[in-house]
Amino acid sequence: MGRDDETVEPTATLRHMTPRTPDELSRIAYLGPRGTFCQMALIAWAGDRSLEQAPQASVPAVLGALRAGEADAAMVPIENSVEGGVSATLDALASGDPLVIIGEVLVPITFVLCARGGMPLSSVRAVGTHSHAWAQVRGWMAEHLPEAAYVPTLSTAGAAEGLGGDAVYDAAVCAPVAAANVGLTVLAHDIGDMKTAVTRFALVTRPGILPEPTGADKTTVVLYQKTDRAGGLLDLLEQFAVRGVNLTRLESRPTGEAMGSYCFSIDFEGHLRDARVGETLMGLKRVCADVRYLGSYPRADGVVTDAREGTRDLDFADANAWLEGLRA
Amino acid sequence: MGRDDETVEPTATLRHMTPRTPDELSRIAYLGPRGTFCQMALIAWAGDRSLEQAPQASVPAVLGALRAGEADAAMVPIENSVEGGVSATLDALASGDPLVIIGEVLVPITFVLCARGGMPLSSVRAVGTHSHAWAQVRGWMAEHLPEAAYVPTLSTAGAAEGLGGDAVYDAAVCAPVAAANVGLTVLAHDIGDMKTAVTRFALVTRPGILPEPTGADKTTVVLYQKTDRAGGLLDLLEQFAVRGVNLTRLESRPTGEAMGSYCFSIDFEGHLRDARVGETLMGLKRVCADVRYLGSYPRADGVVTDAREGTRDLDFADANAWLEGLRA
Amino acid sequence: MGRDDETVEPTATLRHMTPRTPDELSRIAYLGPRGTFCQMALIAWAGDRSLEQAPQASVPAVLGALRAGEADAAMVPIENSVEGGVSATLDALASGDPLVIIGEVLVPITFVLCARGGMPLSSVRAVGTHSHAWAQVRGWMAEHLPEAAYVPTLSTAGAAEGLGGDAVYDAAVCAPVAAANVGLTVLAHDIGDMKTAVTRFALVTRPGILPEPTGADKTTVVLYQKTDRAGGLLDLLEQFAVRGVNLTRLESRPTGEAMGSYCFSIDFEGHLRDARVGETLMGLKRVCADVRYLGSYPRADGVVTDAREGTRDLDFADANAWLEGLRA
Amino acid sequence: MGRDDETVEPTATLRHMTPRTPDELSRIAYLGPRGTFCQMALIAWAGDRSLEQAPQASVPAVLGALRAGEADAAMVPIENSVEGGVSATLDALASGDPLVIIGEVLVPITFVLCARGGMPLSSVRAVGTHSHAWAQVRGWMAEHLPEAAYVPTLSTAGAAEGLGGDAVYDAAVCAPVAAANVGLTVLAHDIGDMKTAVTRFALVTRPGILPEPTGADKTTVVLYQKTDRAGGLLDLLEQFAVRGVNLTRLESRPTGEAMGSYCFSIDFEGHLRDARVGETLMGLKRVCADVRYLGSYPRADGVVTDAREGTRDLDFADANAWLEGLRA
Repeated sequence: MGRDDETVEPTATLRHMTPRTPDELSRIAYLGPRGTFCQMALIAWAGDRSLEQAPQASVPAVLGALRAGEADAAMVPIENSVEGGVSATLDALASGDPLVIIGEVLVPITFVLCARGGMPLSSVRAVGTHSHAWAQVRGWMAEHLPEAAYVPTLSTAGAAEGLGGDAVYDAAVCAPVAAANVGLTVLAHDIGDMKTAVTRFALVTRPGILPEPTGADKTTVVLYQKTDRAGGLLDLLEQFAVRGVNLTRLESRPTGEAMGSYCFSIDFEGHLRDARVGETLMGLKRVCADVRYLGSYPRADGVVTDAREGTRDLDFADANAWLEGLRA
Repeated sequence: MGRDDETVEPTATLRHMTPRTPDELSRIAYLGPRGTFCQMALIAWAGDRSLEQAPQASVPAVLGALRAGEADAAMVPIENSVEGGVSATLDALASGDPLVIIGEVLVPITFVLCARGGMPLSSVRAVGTHSHAWAQVRGWMAEHLPEAAYVPTLSTAGAAEGLGGDAVYDAAVCAPVAAANVGLTVLAHDIGDMKTAVTRFALVTRPGILPEPTGADKTTVVLYQKTDRAGGLLDLLEQFAVRGVNLTRLESRPTGEAMGSYCFSIDFEGHLRDARVGETLMGLKRVCADVRYLGSYPRADGVVTDAREGTRDLDFADANAWLEGLRA
Repeated sequence: MGRDDETVEPTATLRHMTPRTPDELSRIAYLGPRGTFCQMALIAWAGDRSLEQAPQASVPAVLGALRAGEADAAMVPIENSVEGGVSATLDALASGDPLVIIGEVLVPITFVLCARGGMPLSSVRAVGTHSHAWAQVRGWMAEHLPEAAYVPTLSTAGAAEGLGGDAVYDAAVCAPVAAANVGLTVLAHDIGDMKTAVTRFALVTRPGILPEPTGADKTTVVLYQKTDRAGGLLDLLEQFAVRGVNLTRLESRPTGEAMGSYCFSIDFEGHLRDARVGETLMGLKRVCADVRYLGSYPRADGVVTDAREGTRDLDFADANAWLEGLRA
Repeated sequence: MGRDDETVEPTATLRHMTPRTPDELSRIAYLGPRGTFCQMALIAWAGDRSLEQAPQASVPAVLGALRAGEADAAMVPIENSVEGGVSATLDALASGDPLVIIGEVLVPITFVLCARGGMPLSSVRAVGTHSHAWAQVRGWMAEHLPEAAYVPTLSTAGAAEGLGGDAVYDAAVCAPVAAANVGLTVLAHDIGDMKTAVTRFALVTRPGILPEPTGADKTTVVLYQKTDRAGGLLDLLEQFAVRGVNLTRLESRPTGEAMGSYCFSIDFEGHLRDARVGETLMGLKRVCADVRYLGSYPRADGVVTDAREGTRDLDFADANAWLEGLRA
């Protein structure tokens, strides 16, 4: 891993370069500060690569830096096994200049309760953390600190950092590494209510990079319905079903236009270059008001897509050759 | 109209010529003898064209003559508004060397009861006609000739001809023209129970002719299901529905392999060259054990296909361009 | 087996009696004459029961005798593994006074070619048989008697009987028993093109008998679509699919009203008293112009319905109890 | 409106009383403090009723008070036209002791930026508000206060109250009434990016109250899929579609068990007592691992359900009578 900058200073070179492969990425924005689960995802993805890390204060700021060319990729949380889709990320990807996901990372979520040295658990009166984290430790808190007030913060790592300053709370819920970064004392380990909690992070770039198909890929899209069609979602799902494409995530998100006006944020198995995916996307494009393509990328879990008979590339090629023969 | 031969003598020329357009057809086999509704269909289709007509004794014989090269087209009944699909035709098209439908003709069905001169209605003891015709005059017969026996014949025109020979019946049900051809007396006019009865005839050729799309076209296929899939028909119908293709006829026909083993004979709106039809056919090809294409042709009723938004050729072209842009 | 009457003389008693169980049936009409496959079905169904058999000249005559009270049940062919649904039966059940199927019998179909004593195969010039039988021996005929003319008859047994009289053909295709009944010589055995051919016969009564559920049952209905709904068949099939009811036969039949106006003759797994069947029938009743119920009866093949989880009677009872709890 | 208590002191009477109609409700918990949009919803719902209002610090606290019997109803935000479903509410309703929604209120969302007297807009360095509100004024902030830091608070009204104390921010985004309650100066009016923003609030009680059907009703459920079924959501949606029930909201929510394990939070048109709703619920109960019923209630917008032909109560009654006739 390379430098770990707290400030974002875009280099002129990066602004104008268009990376064509994941290996050409060099400056990655992420949801900071240091010590967030998001930074863990970035470190896991980087492996031996030398990368410049650029922490940002919010998801919109992370994607804003990417869109502005101040970073050539961005790591953002996209789905949480306890809290669900991360609205801020889904919405920021669904509007504004196009961006595409080129990779994903799964990070197990482990929370600690920490405080400045000398503070016993019994003295904790107020706890600071991000609202998503608070939701995941609610059971532990109800049992061990039923009287403690909750103070929302912008991130879990930010909650830890605040304890070093003038925080209005006296303990923080954060990742172990965040507590260590600030030199805090851990009052309780592994306090998440759901021991198997995991957050999925997406590595996002400007359009121009399309990872090669691996056979274990996912694709992400946002679908906007035509308002004049009843039973719309059923119609959209049949576009997938009839071509044997399986969904792995579906979130409805309001379009903001009116109560009850929704778009659908969807992950599905397969790669943009797979024949069944291409035909599905074209089918969706025809029946939707709009389809926003958000990238095809290798699955973090490596599960190979089990395309059913009749939906593999070879089946599409055979059917196409047959049709061409009839039309000749 | 040209000559009206009762015998089929293939000319060497026709055997080896491959007509490429409907206008190059010159010798047409049909379900005879003269005076059948099938001949009326052929005459209607021919219009001013000079055609050699070759009557045959049965639908298999008609299609056999075509497959053997003894005719370069064949007119056969395919669907009856009272009796339904004509099994003999559907089955003969579904197996054997490939044939394609290039046109269709609708013929209103009007029956007369006729006999040799001097026979009064009250003396009729037995009536000869084709079983399909008998089914369509059953109500009239129950009212006017309740005691008359039914004698099946190979065709309605054949029933009329038989009265000129040694028939075991003394009246015939046939088309008016058939009675006139043999010089019979009409005992009763328009005796069909259903006054709006119509039969659809198909003009069939060997592969090689594909009529131009007109916007008011139909396509005929036979679909063979994979035996290992439950809910098969629903899956097949969804292949049509998801691409906005409407069916106009669906007949299940036994494959002959086992009780309950069916294939589906289907007519649908649209032409082989329509984008939505092409994608539907490829989809069917992938999920079916086999798809037998039986031709695209102008509708006899001239009803223009009302393709719904998102399923027109332009929609397919737009979606394809969009996909190619994403993949570039 | 009881008497084998060739004439139908209704007894006053039978006219007024309403059998309530299959065992109370005593006079059964069937498609005669003696020696038809239909009589074999009746004999197989009767077993040790003492029954009066009343042969009729046609399917409409068989069902007419039943509707008139001249018989208290009728055996009719309903489906053929080679030729498909028997149109005359399907149509006669779909209209007129209501009738219900209470049982089915599968009869293997074996054909012989027979003639009067002394006639060698090489001398056969014309062959008489029912058109369905002719369709099933066409391959054998093309090979062994390519020059023989075909003469249609009202039944296979009738073709055999005709050879004893003034027939215009000199050989008949029929069941072995029919040849034996008339004392004919068999020229060739087992001449059917499809060695596994089977015909399904239905035992039909006037409404009032509902066989007990056995777990291996089928139900037959005719569905009439509302004309103002597009994609109608798909909607109908979803009524079955969503309740886990599997179809075993689907035939489209013209309603006779106009070309392209069809109803659907359907067999499906399950019994009128099964909860999933009841809900399916009610769903169909609501979306169809009309639903004609044609009976629930034990399957001839005894295959037990494998109702999927969530569609069994217990599942329906549980769901109903849950709903009642919510509404209380 | 009655008293406006800031503290929650359950009365013994309320703990043991079970209101049977909305009019018997007397103590309502809501997401406080005073001045929240949630309180506006409660005031709008109350109308002339005399009600005790019990503000709580969080949605779980509101529903906790209701479950503990410390209030006999609760007003909570459930859906926002900009931010979507309110996760905390959806999740708190989906687990724990059963609760049911008996009414809904739509509140237009209007934000002001306010500060203590004498603070000019140009001096604002940090802005406090709830994260949902911040998301809805992001555009205004980017234009007018691009350098201002964001400080999350537990509610918008809480942000305003904080300005009267030791807040680490110097301006707040909140409802106009919240600014007025604290005596703050409004620096900018109507700063929401989406001028038509609306939040939907639900009035929730313990089971026992079922509002009468009005013809303009909605029902809310949570559906848990069986994990062993592919294409699960499509199957669930068909349970609605086949009975003509329209969805008005669909949210997938993680079950917390594993990444990709989702339940579905759904609103649909119709009332528990509607026949089509009852059959749909039973169908869902049979195919789902679990169905959590969350209430039927009049729609806030009063839009009458346009049940399509064949899905009205009368249609169900007719179909049921027909079935009973067949089974008799």
